[in-house]
Amino acid sequence: MTELRTLKVALLGCGNVGAQVARILIEDADALAARTGARLQLSGIAVRNVNAKRDVELPQELFTTDAETLVKDADLVIELMGGIEPARTLILSALRNGACVVTGNKALLAQDGPTLYEEADKAGVQLSYEAAVAGAIPILRPIRDSLSGDRITRVLGIVNGTTNFILDQMDSTGAQFADALAEAQRLGYAEADPTADVEGHDAAAKAAILATLSFHTRFALENVHCEGITSVTAADIAAAKDAGLVIKLLAIAEKLTDADGGEGVSVRVHPTLLPREHPLAAVRGAFNAVFIEAENAGELMFYGQGAGGTPTASAVLGDLVSAARRLVLGGPQRTETTTGHVPALPIAAATTSYYIGLDVADQPGVLARIAQLFAEHGVSIETMRQTIHRDAESNVESAELRIVTHRASEAALAATVEAVKGLDVINSVTSVLRVEGV
Amino acid sequence: MTELRTLKVALLGCGNVGAQVARILIEDADALAARTGARLQLSGIAVRNVNAKRDVELPQELFTTDAETLVKDADLVIELMGGIEPARTLILSALRNGACVVTGNKALLAQDGPTLYEEADKAGVQLSYEAAVAGAIPILRPIRDSLSGDRITRVLGIVNGTTNFILDQMDSTGAQFADALAEAQRLGYAEADPTADVEGHDAAAKAAILATLSFHTRFALENVHCEGITSVTAADIAAAKDAGLVIKLLAIAEKLTDADGGEGVSVRVHPTLLPREHPLAAVRGAFNAVFIEAENAGELMFYGQGAGGTPTASAVLGDLVSAARRLVLGGPQRTETTTGHVPALPIAAATTSYYIGLDVADQPGVLARIAQLFAEHGVSIETMRQTIHRDAESNVESAELRIVTHRASEAALAATVEAVKGLDVINSVTSVLRVEGV
Repeated sequence: MTELRTLKVALLGCGNVGAQVARILIEDADALAARTGARLQLSGIAVRNVNAKRDVELPQELFTTDAETLVKDADLVIELMGGIEPARTLILSALRNGACVVTGNKALLAQDGPTLYEEADKAGVQLSYEAAVAGAIPILRPIRDSLSGDRITRVLGIVNGTTNFILDQMDSTGAQFADALAEAQRLGYAEADPTADVEGHDAAAKAAILATLSFHTRFALENVHCEGITSVTAADIAAAKDAGLVIKLLAIAEKLTDADGGEGVSVRVHPTLLPREHPLAAVRGAFNAVFIEAENAGELMFYGQGAGGTPTASAVLGDLVSAARRLVLGGPQRTETTTGHVPALPIAAATTSYYIGLDVADQPGVLARIAQLFAEHGVSIETMRQTIHRDAESNVESAELRIVTHRASEAALAATVEAVKGLDVINSVTSVLRVEGV
Repeated sequence: MTELRTLKVALLGCGNVGAQVARILIEDADALAARTGARLQLSGIAVRNVNAKRDVELPQELFTTDAETLVKDADLVIELMGGIEPARTLILSALRNGACVVTGNKALLAQDGPTLYEEADKAGVQLSYEAAVAGAIPILRPIRDSLSGDRITRVLGIVNGTTNFILDQMDSTGAQFADALAEAQRLGYAEADPTADVEGHDAAAKAAILATLSFHTRFALENVHCEGITSVTAADIAAAKDAGLVIKLLAIAEKLTDADGGEGVSVRVHPTLLPREHPLAAVRGAFNAVFIEAENAGELMFYGQGAGGTPTASAVLGDLVSAARRLVLGGPQRTETTTGHVPALPIAAATTSYYIGLDVADQPGVLARIAQLFAEHGVSIETMRQTIHRDAESNVESAELRIVTHRASEAALAATVEAVKGLDVINSVTSVLRVEGV
């Protein structure tokens, strides 16, 4: 066997994922060399505290606090520190030095991706970030490469395992949000401060990355409309279940064409009702999945573990081996093809269907008045269902009305809901949720 | 805008998929140029009869019967003729001329892949074949690239839409095989001669390709144990349903370790029972899906359309754009990394679970005798369920016994079934099916 070339790998960060990446680089060194055509030598691990306790036992001499020096000497740099700085500066420095970079830093990519992509292009090196979206699931590479001869029209993703676990718990046990969150925290699926997950911020960063790759246009976090799941109630879930629907927090990116033929992309994160037969409805627990509609390919779905040290490490290593293979072959590298310029649409311009739950007075003519009000706002009703409840003690009857609309603009739907609230026959609007896949 | 380089694309074959590939190359020329960095110019389409009627209207001057000349002048060759010759000779000629080749020819790859891979490596050009397995679903590239830093342990694939449609029909309507096949033929999901699909040959070719990429070792069709679905009865389906299971034709490739630590890969195609909660169980109609288990990534599933002109054309174009991008960037190409040498195991060495349906005499002690016989053969029983039927007219009672075993070797299971047949208390063995995912 001929002597293999050695490529130096610098690892920045040694948390949950980083520790597993280091372990695999050491344990599977021979298999990785066979896959790559080069030995991937872990030259060091930059951390804040070299003596911190780790999940995995790793050689102490690998640890250093001097990330700058480690990066300067590396052929391949893996950034798993998270956060904006010093990750951003270190990645830029690595790219300028001609190193290929693998990162899982969704926050940085969503905030300042364009700067990083441009620097990689300029240096002629690869910047890859499969681990940034949907953990172990190979989704970015298929979008970029396998679907490069097709036109993606819509992406619907369950890209946050914490919120999927919480919603799935609420769906299967009838629990309220707070109890399901507490259970997720107890099992380690949610952090002590769950804000980034339950408010949808984590999913929004991933939505920006998915939209950028799917529509060849750079979308930033500020282009993403974001609603979390904190206001989803057990009653919402029960009503959805009753209607054959399930609530998922979806990251959505879809191309829309307005009446004048102008194209735009709506990028948004919000709780969404899906029919129970939809492939995404079967994604349970903390699993992730991304559902793609493309002009030629039709419907595709990619399913797997969205988080966890070892699964996410698999995605990091896939990127690392691919980058190393290109280095071994030689020749120039390329990262991105964001040549498009499709404008990002505001949420008001998105078109979607609404599910609206209403507590209404049980009087003749109520349905007609509500239906007329929808018609006046240009919103077409797909289904309308009334259920009468009688309070056993007071013997007072109340009526529950559930409306699913056809697709209409968010602006028209929002105006309709506002107008409905003003009707004297409405006791309360019990839920307003968007619907996809019907 | 600078003048883009032009790459000449030769298309061999203009059937269902070829015609759509030609259409997209012409209609989407600008978008493909933007994705690729080069204009992809369709230089000609080689067919047997230039005047044949096509699904898609294409410029008549593109057609030629002289495939050899067309190939000589091309930068990129798309082979969609199918069959072994002249496809094999034309692909080898294209590779030797330094053209990158995209093919969907699973039969040729399964029979003579190694010759083609070696020629591509020697010539330093790419040979890609995403369309050969599971149509539009990006599955080969993710296995080769995204999972290159991981170890795949098992692949379970629904890779034949015809048989999935037939089994799904049988499951949802209770139809017998022959009626479901006739329905599939009526709807265009099955061909007039359905042998290649229903006998599992098509799935076996795909299993060989999946196994080769997943285990970095070249497996040929002769390494694949193949059983079709022609003997699956409505009664099998009903019994499965009753037990919370569903029957799918699976292409399976899994790494097994024997008692002495020796490794081997079992590659096989056969009707398989799956729990209804398994992600593959939800794959309905003619859809395809590939479920992968990897050491680090855990469980992954890829879902989409497995056939059809336009979806399959999407996969062909993804390969074409990727190959063209590499040509534009320059530098050497590489196709395969089949550096491993894991032996293919015979079916007798595979380990699996069995579902066994028995029509038994309703006598005391029968269950004990059967259980003892399993124990003697070293096969452990997971569940055993007895149902008593009474014939209304004759008033004769009969008992139906359903056994699911733990994983054991095929050899031990086959021997057990043979021995069971010899017991005097057994009226008949009503079904023997393998089970996965329990």
